[in-house]
Amino acid sequence: MPEIRVETDSAHYSVHLGSGLLQPQAGASSLVGLPAKASRVIVVTSPEVERFWGESLRRALGNGIPVNLLHVPAGEQHKRLSTVERLCEELAALGADRDTLLIALGGGVIGDITGFVAAIYMRGIRFLQVPTTLLAQVDSSVGGKTGVNLAAGKNLVGSFHQPVAVIADLDTLRTLPVRELRAGLQESVKSAIIRDAALFDFMEANLDAVLAGDSAALERVVESSIRVKAAVVAADEREGGLRMILNFGHTVGHAIEAATEYKHLLHGEAIGWGMLAAIHLGESRGVLPAADANRMRELIRRTTDLPNFAATTERLVALTGSDKKKRSGTLSFILPIGIGQVEIVNDVTEAELSAAVAAMLAEVQAISRASGVEEPAHAG
Amino acid sequence: MPEIRVETDSAHYSVHLGSGLLQPQAGASSLVGLPAKASRVIVVTSPEVERFWGESLRRALGNGIPVNLLHVPAGEQHKRLSTVERLCEELAALGADRDTLLIALGGGVIGDITGFVAAIYMRGIRFLQVPTTLLAQVDSSVGGKTGVNLAAGKNLVGSFHQPVAVIADLDTLRTLPVRELRAGLQESVKSAIIRDAALFDFMEANLDAVLAGDSAALERVVESSIRVKAAVVAADEREGGLRMILNFGHTVGHAIEAATEYKHLLHGEAIGWGMLAAIHLGESRGVLPAADANRMRELIRRTTDLPNFAATTERLVALTGSDKKKRSGTLSFILPIGIGQVEIVNDVTEAELSAAVAAMLAEVQAISRASGVEEPAHAG
Ligand SMILES: NC(=O)c1ccc[n+]([C@@H]2O[C@H](COP(=O)([O-])OP(=O)(O)OC[C@H]3O[C@@H](n4cnc5c(N)ncnc54)[C@H](O)[C@@H]3O)[C@@H](O)[C@H]2O)c1
Ligand SMILES: NC(=O)c1ccc[n+]([C@@H]2O[C@H](COP(=O)([O-])OP(=O)(O)OC[C@H]3O[C@@H](n4cnc5c(N)ncnc54)[C@H](O)[C@@H]3O)[C@@H](O)[C@H]2O)c1
Ligand SMILES: [Zn+2]
Ligand SMILES: [Zn+2]
Repeated sequence: MPEIRVETDSAHYSVHLGSGLLQPQAGASSLVGLPAKASRVIVVTSPEVERFWGESLRRALGNGIPVNLLHVPAGEQHKRLSTVERLCEELAALGADRDTLLIALGGGVIGDITGFVAAIYMRGIRFLQVPTTLLAQVDSSVGGKTGVNLAAGKNLVGSFHQPVAVIADLDTLRTLPVRELRAGLQESVKSAIIRDAALFDFMEANLDAVLAGDSAALERVVESSIRVKAAVVAADEREGGLRMILNFGHTVGHAIEAATEYKHLLHGEAIGWGMLAAIHLGESRGVLPAADANRMRELIRRTTDLPNFAATTERLVALTGSDKKKRSGTLSFILPIGIGQVEIVNDVTEAELSAAVAAMLAEVQAISRASGVEEPAHAG
Repeated sequence: MPEIRVETDSAHYSVHLGSGLLQPQAGASSLVGLPAKASRVIVVTSPEVERFWGESLRRALGNGIPVNLLHVPAGEQHKRLSTVERLCEELAALGADRDTLLIALGGGVIGDITGFVAAIYMRGIRFLQVPTTLLAQVDSSVGGKTGVNLAAGKNLVGSFHQPVAVIADLDTLRTLPVRELRAGLQESVKSAIIRDAALFDFMEANLDAVLAGDSAALERVVESSIRVKAAVVAADEREGGLRMILNFGHTVGHAIEAATEYKHLLHGEAIGWGMLAAIHLGESRGVLPAADANRMRELIRRTTDLPNFAATTERLVALTGSDKKKRSGTLSFILPIGIGQVEIVNDVTEAELSAAVAAMLAEVQAISRASGVEEPAHAG
């Protein structure tokens, strides 16, 4: 079973990856990765994830330790401070203290909320991530970014707070809707493009096996993706520099999500489109060879259906500028320069950005025409 | 002008202490302690503090930098996550980014809220403390504890987030109600008892001068108090051990505040009573010489009128047990063992605690009888 170490300035921990991790271990009374000194455990999950995996986790925890469950309804709209406050009040009512361990059982929404609750309850208690979506396993559960949304924008409040461990059980992905699985895989494509050419080659050769549920192939992809994230986060925990490369595809991707009000596309699908725009930009600047660009495009298109959506170039460019990643007026942009390699640039002009977004939107339109789908009325 | 260095694991900064710090400096365009690279400044304050000191701060900031003001009404009841969320939305609406500097202009309530907003907005931006109460100058502005209350209890959510600097202008204390000033001085008495015998001697000899507004005497007391806090926090930023000594008088003090619903006594007054209980405990254990105990009691009683209140021994003992400082069942207690010296013990029995609380309540009753004041109807 792969164990991937994450060594940041503030904490060192392991990601335990494999199958059957949520099965009661023969002879072992507790979950792999569970810290020895937890006085009690409180699990935060959503009702639908609990239905599939709650009982497995309970059994894996054994009965040597008191366990409570708190619920958050599924959906990004619950990732707000009001949910955080309600959970903190419930922790206090349960008598949770500094020795309590929180466990996040769910996707990125549950992980981000629970991690933030752990970051601020009594100024910080421990938490463990049990990610149950592909996106959460390869991305959100690793690296310690926690937080919630404001009305003004996504992830605008939060903390850096590392988990004590991450337990990524590939079995949990079996109950995940396939569209969610595919969307999460775009983060693996991202990892491959920014830093792991071998992973890229593997995905090119084995994507069909991964999508067909071949667990060895899936494990290979998830492990490599986590290793990319772990290495980047170890080098730059607080996104002072290198960590920005994880935003490849996200500058335009976030603009698409905002323009479509987070309703029409899954995050990974928006990132797929965002990567296509960034690839166009790299190619038209002459820093990315056409052959590499074509292979990237091909893999992105095979990984998910890229749903069409309605937005104008102007709107997307404007939303890109308001992205919180901007620092003092200059927009940092992650440009691909070859398979497994990106560079961070600060000199992307509005004209260049517009051209890249327009090229991407031309492809969106082509899909709409091909599928005969009408453009949604609420042009974003 | 004294400059006190605070050197913690996570940050190094200065407390600038003196008079006239909020006056526009001749020739200087900006406030002492203001970081050079702030792109904009957003001040958080309450309307009443703004009335006295808002214009001074604005002028001291000069006009080389954009300044906005956000308001929080005075009062502990506003120290909640709903205020934090509202302020974060207002920051976003103003376009605040990672280079924005927040300034907390006010007492401990404003400082704790603003510090917490700075801790979580975009996962952490810089903030500067401009404490305008004695309590905030000698205690809450230094050390990086930030946070807000839950319905379930005080300061139950928060972060450790150090300010970039603290600017403690003694002039601001001139507009502070004298009862607030005296209550804040109990924290200086606390600092003297736990770690600074020379400060204790000075306060004994010069308390009348301090209360009469002698600025040299006041500066001496504030400076020494801040040095105690800075030294303790430098040794133990996250309250793993030594920092607990700052809770001297607070274990019972917090219980009194809870029993009286935070309405009847100021924090420093409750701490005064709490210190009296702890002194009784130290004396009856035989670890604190009677002569020292008597000098401590005398100074505490001279520093504030200790208002009477209604609570039973049972209730206070029960509330003491539920204090969040407890860890896994054992109650840490800070016992005075001599002037300038305390020890942290974990073996205080309920009988000992009850006896100490009862002795303190006997004094409360004596005051009530002497002043002819009826006990409040809402016996806590
Ligand atoms: N912290 C980070 O570094 C980071 C990085 C990337 C994304 N994120 C955040 O992650 C969130 C998205 O996470 P997500 O894509 O996992 O979405 P999600 O958490 O909303 O989960 C998607 C859906 O799948 C359901 N689900 C989860 N596990 C399941 C399972 N095993 N079987 C069946 N259904 C299951 C959920 O209930 C939900 O309806 C966003 O809020 C995003 O901001 C955070
Ligand atoms: N973070 C920490 O380490 C720490 C330590 C101790 C206390 N605290 C917190 O501090 C808070 C108490 O702080 P406080 O005692 O300063 O109370 P406060 O902030 O409520 O201020 C007391 C009153 O004085 C007013 N005021 C403030 N400055 C003034 C001035 N210069 N002139 C006239 N009026 C003025 C305020 O508007 C308020 O009405 C509590 O919430 C407590 O939990 C925090
Ligand atoms: Zn992403
Ligand atoms: Zn105090």
